[in-house]
Amino acid sequence: MTVTAPGGFRSSGLAVGLKTTGKPDLALVVNDGPQRASAVVFTSNRAQANPILWSRRVAQHGAARAIVLNSGGANCFTGDFGYETTRLTAEAVAAALGEGDPAGYAAARILVCSTGLIGTGDQVFRDKIVDNVPALVEALDADDTTAPSAILTTDSVEKTATHVSPDGWTIGAMAKGAGMLAPGLATMLVVITTDAVLDDAALDRALRRATSASFDRLDSDGCMSTNDQVTLLASGASGVAPDEDAFAAALAAVCDSLAAQLQADAEGASHDIDIEVRGAASVADAVEVGRSVARNNLFKAAIFGNDPNWGRVLAAIGTTEADFDPYRVDVAFNGVRLCHAGAPDRPVEECDLTPRRTHVEIDLFAGEHTATIRTNDLTHDYVHENSAYSS
Amino acid sequence: MTVTAPGGFRSSGLAVGLKTTGKPDLALVVNDGPQRASAVVFTSNRAQANPILWSRRVAQHGAARAIVLNSGGANCFTGDFGYETTRLTAEAVAAALGEGDPAGYAAARILVCSTGLIGTGDQVFRDKIVDNVPALVEALDADDTTAPSAILTTDSVEKTATHVSPDGWTIGAMAKGAGMLAPGLATMLVVITTDAVLDDAALDRALRRATSASFDRLDSDGCMSTNDQVTLLASGASGVAPDEDAFAAALAAVCDSLAAQLQADAEGASHDIDIEVRGAASVADAVEVGRSVARNNLFKAAIFGNDPNWGRVLAAIGTTEADFDPYRVDVAFNGVRLCHAGAPDRPVEECDLTPRRTHVEIDLFAGEHTATIRTNDLTHDYVHENSAYSS
Repeated sequence: MTVTAPGGFRSSGLAVGLKTTGKPDLALVVNDGPQRASAVVFTSNRAQANPILWSRRVAQHGAARAIVLNSGGANCFTGDFGYETTRLTAEAVAAALGEGDPAGYAAARILVCSTGLIGTGDQVFRDKIVDNVPALVEALDADDTTAPSAILTTDSVEKTATHVSPDGWTIGAMAKGAGMLAPGLATMLVVITTDAVLDDAALDRALRRATSASFDRLDSDGCMSTNDQVTLLASGASGVAPDEDAFAAALAAVCDSLAAQLQADAEGASHDIDIEVRGAASVADAVEVGRSVARNNLFKAAIFGNDPNWGRVLAAIGTTEADFDPYRVDVAFNGVRLCHAGAPDRPVEECDLTPRRTHVEIDLFAGEHTATIRTNDLTHDYVHENSAYSS
Repeated sequence: MTVTAPGGFRSSGLAVGLKTTGKPDLALVVNDGPQRASAVVFTSNRAQANPILWSRRVAQHGAARAIVLNSGGANCFTGDFGYETTRLTAEAVAAALGEGDPAGYAAARILVCSTGLIGTGDQVFRDKIVDNVPALVEALDADDTTAPSAILTTDSVEKTATHVSPDGWTIGAMAKGAGMLAPGLATMLVVITTDAVLDDAALDRALRRATSASFDRLDSDGCMSTNDQVTLLASGASGVAPDEDAFAAALAAVCDSLAAQLQADAEGASHDIDIEVRGAASVADAVEVGRSVARNNLFKAAIFGNDPNWGRVLAAIGTTEADFDPYRVDVAFNGVRLCHAGAPDRPVEECDLTPRRTHVEIDLFAGEHTATIRTNDLTHDYVHENSAYSS
């Protein structure tokens, strides 16, 4: 139980043959109410998949009632045919859910997400999804455990998180994402549910606050996706209207947990690197500096080799516009300050980078702001996973 | 004969023990005149090595008379001691060259370049350079062939180019650079000489024009260096004042040849990728779009795997601010159009990426401008070279 941990939700997952592995690849999450509120954050990539183009319209129309997700194909850059596939999928879900429901369901209230290889979305792909929607709806269950696995692609493990508030409301979440992890957002699909009583506006404020400090600071390989979508659905089933800040804090913790799980499962990674930038003139500066290091292949390869190469850190941050003096910067690896005031400090031999968790601390001495960017090292396995087969 | 191909120049190279391999690691190029004019372009990285900080001052003082270069240590982020090492090196060169020269040499006329590991520049490093300057000057020869090898680091081959004008003037050049190749400039040291009669201003115009269309469009691994310097020295020994456009064109050709040689020798690369962006609204847009692809690890890994993954190209260019419609773009690999108007076109099986030379053509249909970015693929050898040892 993850997205169905909160009251008012059912989910299901099926294997419909989109994945060559025969594993589950189609999932559905339905908000049974009584309240229906939602908020959605999309990738900032201008190259957007058909499900993103569709879901943007749904989000504008008002609260979503359900979200259908498939792995095994991104349905991105598949032309008008691909967009039509997304529309037909939403209509099939609305029709199947609407049977016997006086309120009825409109396709315009059904969010759609897809993930997999760009360019995949032919007639076979369409049929496998649309033809199986009735069975997917039939399988809906408040105790479902299949949905989280049905959205995985190159992920090696399911990513889920829950938060139970002593005040009587709950948050549940599931996520996928292993490659193409970069902000705006990382390459991932996330569905978060809650039975708290909150309106669309409150959900949107809390979601943007949570994603900006979690997923937007996850930058595994600098590559931005075409299909990212983070969806938050509220059913109001708990009957409890939470303090908005308390809810936002809990939601942020759930997103942070998912971001850490995404980082830990990044394709081919052997180190999870937290780049903590301190003493920045602004949070934006701290993020820019951290990101410049997270995207530096020489730095990432050095970490793979357990080499605390602080010179590559300085070479990376020197390319930014951030406000600091490169000759006043301190750099520490796993607690050992190797560079002080732009010159060598402790011997690199004192630093042990063999643990998977790696902490790089950069002090700019330019202000009071801080930010941490999560990234991974550049490994042979990363090259292998992204060159040996198309994804 | 490369930098000494034009009249009025002598060069030398020595092995002074900076490289553990015992190969040449100290070089000197002297302009014997009769005229002495120069132009220099430096890295745009804010994190700059001591020789860059020194050479910037020299460039401001006026025409340089000589340039001394070492490999085996970048003398970057080595503190005041490192800057003093650079100054002492220039003074040693000026003193040794000045003996018996009525005109005399001032340290402020001596450019210094260093390349190698950041953080390297201790007393031993200083002594090996300064103590060997007299022998380096003693070895100066108009027929020297050692200098080009003395500036190499992880390079596997020497990079040189010459242009002999029918009008009687000549251009000679040598370059190093294999990793950290990204613009502003690539990680490289370049020395270009000419016996044409041109003043500092004319040389500066020609050099900036040439580098912007060559080295600045070379982006092997997206990592910007702290030590890049491209130096152009003119002796006027030919007595010929060339047409400025003709000289600029010849200089551009020389720089383009060197850029191609740098690309072909990039660390661990198995493909030389030319990303040609056409139909851009501006040259700046074309460069931004090309660069976004050149820096996308998923695209680079796909090329290593001989996978013409056009989806990763679209995902990359979608992150830019360039003026175009992602759904009108065409993408071709080695002449085979795989994506037309944002949808699949020819079958990927028709595309052969086994040759080292790879041509990716992106038509934005947004204007008449074009630009080509040179890059390389992301390979196991790249990861190995940059993780197995510190550099």
